[in-house]
Amino acid sequence: MVDIATRVWNHKWKIDPIVRSLIDNDFYKLLMCQSIYRNRPDATVTFSLINRSKDIRLANLIDEGELREQLDHIRSLSLSRGEGTFLRGNTFYGKRQMFRHDFMEWFENLRLPDYHLEKRDGQYELTFEGKWHEVMLWEIPALAVLMELRGRAVLDDMRKFELQVLYARAMTKLWEKIERLRDVPNLRIADFGTRRRHSYLWQDWCVQAMVEGLGDKFVGTSNCLIAMKRDLEAIGTNAHELPMVFSALAESDDELRQAPYKVLADWHEEHEGNLRIILPDTYGTKGFLRGAPDWLAGWTGVRIDSGDPATGAENAIQWWKERGEDPTQKLIIFSDGLDVDKITELHSQFDGRAKISFGWGTLLTNDFRGLTKDNALEPFSLVCKAVKANGTPTVKLSDNPNKAMGPQDQIDRYKRVFGVGQQDKMDVIV
Amino acid sequence: MVDIATRVWNHKWKIDPIVRSLIDNDFYKLLMCQSIYRNRPDATVTFSLINRSKDIRLANLIDEGELREQLDHIRSLSLSRGEGTFLRGNTFYGKRQMFRHDFMEWFENLRLPDYHLEKRDGQYELTFEGKWHEVMLWEIPALAVLMELRGRAVLDDMRKFELQVLYARAMTKLWEKIERLRDVPNLRIADFGTRRRHSYLWQDWCVQAMVEGLGDKFVGTSNCLIAMKRDLEAIGTNAHELPMVFSALAESDDELRQAPYKVLADWHEEHEGNLRIILPDTYGTKGFLRGAPDWLAGWTGVRIDSGDPATGAENAIQWWKERGEDPTQKLIIFSDGLDVDKITELHSQFDGRAKISFGWGTLLTNDFRGLTKDNALEPFSLVCKAVKANGTPTVKLSDNPNKAMGPQDQIDRYKRVFGVGQQDKMDVIV
Repeated sequence: MVDIATRVWNHKWKIDPIVRSLIDNDFYKLLMCQSIYRNRPDATVTFSLINRSKDIRLANLIDEGELREQLDHIRSLSLSRGEGTFLRGNTFYGKRQMFRHDFMEWFENLRLPDYHLEKRDGQYELTFEGKWHEVMLWEIPALAVLMELRGRAVLDDMRKFELQVLYARAMTKLWEKIERLRDVPNLRIADFGTRRRHSYLWQDWCVQAMVEGLGDKFVGTSNCLIAMKRDLEAIGTNAHELPMVFSALAESDDELRQAPYKVLADWHEEHEGNLRIILPDTYGTKGFLRGAPDWLAGWTGVRIDSGDPATGAENAIQWWKERGEDPTQKLIIFSDGLDVDKITELHSQFDGRAKISFGWGTLLTNDFRGLTKDNALEPFSLVCKAVKANGTPTVKLSDNPNKAMGPQDQIDRYKRVFGVGQQDKMDVIV
Repeated sequence: MVDIATRVWNHKWKIDPIVRSLIDNDFYKLLMCQSIYRNRPDATVTFSLINRSKDIRLANLIDEGELREQLDHIRSLSLSRGEGTFLRGNTFYGKRQMFRHDFMEWFENLRLPDYHLEKRDGQYELTFEGKWHEVMLWEIPALAVLMELRGRAVLDDMRKFELQVLYARAMTKLWEKIERLRDVPNLRIADFGTRRRHSYLWQDWCVQAMVEGLGDKFVGTSNCLIAMKRDLEAIGTNAHELPMVFSALAESDDELRQAPYKVLADWHEEHEGNLRIILPDTYGTKGFLRGAPDWLAGWTGVRIDSGDPATGAENAIQWWKERGEDPTQKLIIFSDGLDVDKITELHSQFDGRAKISFGWGTLLTNDFRGLTKDNALEPFSLVCKAVKANGTPTVKLSDNPNKAMGPQDQIDRYKRVFGVGQQDKMDVIV
C-alpha cells in the first residue's frame, strides 16, 4: 500500500532541502553562540568558505541556483517548539539548563542572516558577515550543503540499483570499521562528522549503526538534531573561532598574547566538567601550554586537532605532570583526520595513561573513497572560518602549517607574539 | 508519515507467508503441468524432498510448526484473476495462448493437494502423493519454503543494522558479479534461481538488479510471478521429471528404452521454437543422443544440467554435426551449478560455435557464502523429486553419479538398458 499523501507530499517540494532544522548543527556551535551572545554581542565577524582542495572545482560541480535555493531554505528555518524544549530542558553532561533563558528567547526568534555568494576561478566565494553569534551559526550548515550538493551532482548520473549498491558498499565499509572498533577495549568514540558528511540521511544511518555496533563505546554525536531524534548525548565544547576572534579584537601585542587565555577565562565562568576542554593548538600547542595560567591545568582535558596527535597528547601529559596534575584523571580528545587505524594506534598508545576519547569526523560520515568511478565522491577539505573580526583579519597557526590561515604579515606577527618556531607540515586530507 | 493501515495490516498476519501466489513457481512447471494434464492425467506420482547436504540438519534448524504453517498457507492459495489473465493472454516465446483453455479452467480452480511431513534423523521427510499434474506443482514452493525458513532461522539472531549490512554485502557481491558479466559480449543469461533462493524478496531484488545491470543480456526469469510483476519474459522448457516418470511407467525394457524419446514426441506435438529444448542427461547424455530419432536433432537446442558442461556441449555439437545440423544455429543452455567464473569460461569456449545461453540458479539468488558467522547461510543441495510413479520407483542417472537417484537394483537395470558405462563423479555444490 502506497501512502498517497506521503507520495504527493514528497513530490510537492520544489527542492529537497539538505538542512531542515536550525539544530542540524554542531552542539558546540550553540554553546559558543551562547557564550558570544553574552560576552561579545557587538562583535562583527565575517565567516568565509575556504576550499583547501583546489582541484575540486566546486563552482563547476554545483549549480549556483541550487546552492542559493538550499541556502535560502536555511534562512527560512526557525527553531521549532520541540527543538526549543529539547535545548531548554535537556541535561547535557549532567548539567541542567545549560542554555540560559535569555539566550533561548533570542534563539527562538532567530533567522540566519544573509549570505554573499559569487563564483571565482571555478570556486564559490561564500561569505557571511554580521553579528558574530549570528553568522557563526552558518558554518556547519553551509559546509553540509556544499558537501551534499557535490555528492548529489555525482549521484545524478547513477541509476537505481547502482545507487543502492553504492550505499550497500558504503554501509559494508563502515560496518567493517565498526567491527574493528568493537574489539577495542575501553573505547570512547563520538560522531563529529556533521560538517563534511555525505548527506544528512547518511550521517543519521552512520550514527545508528554506531549505536547498534558499538553500544556503550559510542558516547554521542556532535549533531544536535540527531542527538534529539536518536536519544543520544550531544557532544562538543569549543572551537578555534573563539581564540581567533578574540585575538583579532586584541588591540596590542600584549592583549593578543593573553587573548587565548582570556577567552577560556570567560568559558571557565560559564562551564564546568566535560565542557572544560582546552583546544590548545590555535597558535601552537607548546607555547600555549607553556604560558597557560595554572587554573587551566585544572580543566578536564584537552582536544588535539592538528599536528601529530601522539606528540600533542604527549605534550599535554607532560604539561599536566609539570603542573602537578594526574594525567590519568584527564581527558584527551582526538579529533583530527581520524580513521580506524589511527584510532586504534592512538588508543593503544594512550589508553591507561589518560582518559581518551575520539571525535570521529569525515571518515565516519563521508568515506566513499573508492566506491565510484574516478573516486568522484572522495571527501575533500572544505572549511568555513571566521576570517575577520571588526574589520581585522583573523589568524590561525595550528600545529600544522598546512592548516594555517590569515594574511602573511599577520601570520608572522602571531608567530612572533606566540613564540612559534619551525613546524612540521602534514598533509590535510579532510 | 507512517501509513497506519499498512503498519497494522503488516502486523495482523499470523505468519509471514513465503509463497504468496500459485505462480510464484517456475514457468516450466506450468508448461509440463499442462502437458501431463493432457497426456498422463491418471498417473499417480510421489514427490519427495531430498537433502543431499546431510550435514545441514533441517529438522533441527526449522521449527515443524512454522514449516506446516507455510505449507498450509500454500494450500490456501488459488490463482488470482490477474494471474489467470497473465497466463492466458501473454505471449511466451512469441507464441500466443500457450496455455489452453481447458488447462486454464482446471488451473483456476486448483488448490494444491495435501502433504505428508515427519521428522527423521534430524531431517524432514516431506512427500506429496497424488495426481502427477497436481503434486508436481509442489516441488518449487516446497523447496523455496525450506530454503527461506532455514535462512530465517539464521537471521533470527541478528539485529537491525547487522541485517542491513548483511544484505548490503550480498547486494555488493551480486553487483560485482553483474559488473563482470556486463563485459561479456553476446551474453544471454536468465534467472533460474527460484527453488533455492534466499527469499522471495531477495530473488526479486536480484532479478531487478540484473535488468538494470545487464540490459538486453538478461533475457528473463524462470519465476512466473516475478516475470509478471517485472514485465519480463518467463523462461523455461522441461525437466527430468518427464522422462523419469514416463520411464517408471514403462512396462518392459524396450518400452523403458524408448520412454525418454516418447515423452519428447508428446512435447514435439505441443511445442515449437524455443520450447523444443532437449534435456539429454537423465539416463546419460551420450547414449541418449546416440539413440535419438532424427527429428530430435531438428529441435532448437539442448540444456546441459549435469556432468562436465564443456564435455556435454561438445557432445551435443558433435551430434548435431553427425546429424547434418548446423550447430551455430543451435541453442545450448547451461544450467548446472553456474557462477561467474564458469559462465565466462563456457562463454569464451562456445560463443560463436553455437548460440549459448545461461540459466543461473542458486549462486544468483542465494550466494550468501562468507557473509555470516560460521557461513550459516551457505547454500546447500536440496531437491524435491518424483520418486515414484504408479507405485514404481523412478530412477535418475544423469551425467554425474553424485546426482543419481533410485533403488540400486533399478539404477543397475537402467544403466544396462541405456548402456551407461563408467561416469565421472563431480561434487554437487548446489
